[in-house]
Amino acid sequence: MTVISVDLSNAPYDIHVRAGLLADAGRYLEPYAREGRLLVVTDEHVAHFVLPKFEAALRDVGVACAAFTLPAGEAGKSWSQLERLTDWLLEHHIERNDHIIALGGGVVGDITGFAAHIVKRGCAFVQIPTTLLAQVDSSVGGKTAINSAAGKNLVGAFHQPAMVLIDPDLLETLPTRQLAAGFAEVVKYGVIDDAGFFKYCEDNLDRFFAGDPDIRAEAIIRAVQSKARIVAADETERTGTRALLNLGHTFGHALEADTGFSDRLFHGEAVAAGIALALRYSVRLGICEANEAHRVSRLLKQAGLPTTLSEAGVTADGATLVDYMRHDKKMSAGTLPFLLARGIGETFLSKDVSLDDVATFLDREAQS
Amino acid sequence: MTVISVDLSNAPYDIHVRAGLLADAGRYLEPYAREGRLLVVTDEHVAHFVLPKFEAALRDVGVACAAFTLPAGEAGKSWSQLERLTDWLLEHHIERNDHIIALGGGVVGDITGFAAHIVKRGCAFVQIPTTLLAQVDSSVGGKTAINSAAGKNLVGAFHQPAMVLIDPDLLETLPTRQLAAGFAEVVKYGVIDDAGFFKYCEDNLDRFFAGDPDIRAEAIIRAVQSKARIVAADETERTGTRALLNLGHTFGHALEADTGFSDRLFHGEAVAAGIALALRYSVRLGICEANEAHRVSRLLKQAGLPTTLSEAGVTADGATLVDYMRHDKKMSAGTLPFLLARGIGETFLSKDVSLDDVATFLDREAQS
Repeated sequence: MTVISVDLSNAPYDIHVRAGLLADAGRYLEPYAREGRLLVVTDEHVAHFVLPKFEAALRDVGVACAAFTLPAGEAGKSWSQLERLTDWLLEHHIERNDHIIALGGGVVGDITGFAAHIVKRGCAFVQIPTTLLAQVDSSVGGKTAINSAAGKNLVGAFHQPAMVLIDPDLLETLPTRQLAAGFAEVVKYGVIDDAGFFKYCEDNLDRFFAGDPDIRAEAIIRAVQSKARIVAADETERTGTRALLNLGHTFGHALEADTGFSDRLFHGEAVAAGIALALRYSVRLGICEANEAHRVSRLLKQAGLPTTLSEAGVTADGATLVDYMRHDKKMSAGTLPFLLARGIGETFLSKDVSLDDVATFLDREAQS
Repeated sequence: MTVISVDLSNAPYDIHVRAGLLADAGRYLEPYAREGRLLVVTDEHVAHFVLPKFEAALRDVGVACAAFTLPAGEAGKSWSQLERLTDWLLEHHIERNDHIIALGGGVVGDITGFAAHIVKRGCAFVQIPTTLLAQVDSSVGGKTAINSAAGKNLVGAFHQPAMVLIDPDLLETLPTRQLAAGFAEVVKYGVIDDAGFFKYCEDNLDRFFAGDPDIRAEAIIRAVQSKARIVAADETERTGTRALLNLGHTFGHALEADTGFSDRLFHGEAVAAGIALALRYSVRLGICEANEAHRVSRLLKQAGLPTTLSEAGVTADGATLVDYMRHDKKMSAGTLPFLLARGIGETFLSKDVSLDDVATFLDREAQS
């Protein structure tokens, strides 16, 4: 068992990582039960594959649960689902010190954390992420959200979980395409500021995808540690440190927008292509060796991830893609923070990137 | 001009109070304009009576505004209005450091503050409260909310304004019944912990209602100072100090529930009757002199406020009213914090009140 402490000023919490942890969840959650019961939020998919095991783990310690089921996928993060969920929590007489359990992927964690933040002006929640992306990304940092007419994650709050339980064994039933999408975020931490971890990902790619439990646990732990360290340094995105986590996300956001934020391009796939583009754009600016950019693309490609516009299924021209970026919520005071890299492990925040030049770069990418 | 500093750990802010301040609002708000424009949220009523003056004040400093208009009354605090409002803010390209202006009563302040809290995970807002209740109560403390199927204010967040501008002259066009409802919250601060201010309210009741600008300003300032002091001691309701502000609200909540949270009984009217009941219940428990309870009821009655169940238009029996209390969001771990008084200015939080005894008390009140 590895325990990672996320050291936040107002609300420090622990992330527990261990293969087989789900079967033992009762021991961790029993103290949070009130009148022998917990409220659990999940989605249709997880309700089928994981919820029965989770309910059994709670039964072992004499705790019952009431479950709220969201539709699977992004549809679960709508205004109407948020209203349904908060109504359900209130019908179940939720109180301010109660802990809601989020059992599922990023969508379940995001909307449950947001509902916990706003119902009675703030309840607690525990995350049990069931996808690789949620384990290494959504479960750390306290960003919660729903989608709105104007875009994804534009309405939400910062709300830290009270505890996170990560069981790498849950990845066994995850479709390979989703596993790869999560792997893009794992690789990201290496590219940001940990060249040693990037090398670890290169060396262990095959064993990771073959299901080696030690490699999977180690990769998750190191990714979570990286994110926890960066978030603790800048909890509510004020100093710029946390912006490093957006590596690949500004390009990625444009690619997702162009593919309609749909299953045609998963978020993690867009991030993979976005990271590759950010590195190649850094090469264009003359601040990064071409070799380094190649190495990043090669690893992502080996994981089955897209690294070019065409592989991402994007056909829009540079001007259109840059226009999507302009409507990114990271836009502030008319400028867009851009993540560039001097090499693997040397990502930095640039505020003077010319969007016109980015458009030209993307047009050349489209032709290559 | 009086400036009251609300001294909160993360987000201190100033409340400016002066007759005629609205005409001068441009000077305070101009620094918050981006590209010469501010986003303003108001309601149908205020849009008619106050918005034109406000727009003129902004024009004086070369600032334009775009206004979003809510329906007047509690209907403005619904899920659908919140979605409409956040969509509108996003359509107007709101950014994280922008300041939204809330121009209106408690409903406008509550939903605007909540929208500011959640749009892009947190924008700023400035409150310009236009009713007495909003000036002395909603504008201090950072409680924001909407209503849901299960009840009033059950969904929301703590979000402090960046600044509050209070112009007592705005009360000149306020209907007397609304002025009286706000006065109940003014008197409350005297009963909580300031016997001297309670006496001030007694001595100056007539001049306050006759429109004396100095008396009105002074009453608002002292009420706001009281609330600011109590909130600063317990920003997110953790220590119990802030619970003092709920004097009259547990009884009041039951009265509002019984009258359907409608215009039959305004919130401030319910609080007036609730304060009178809390004092008489304290007399029943033998901890308060009957004279003190009489004095409180007399002042509230002179202000035209209800002080008994029948004056509040409530016909339910004690058991029914206590059942409403059980569903109050202040309920925690199965017990309801109850505010009692040893006398005027000596309110305290009791956690061992028997709800059965409260029901018996209310049945006797109904017969008297």
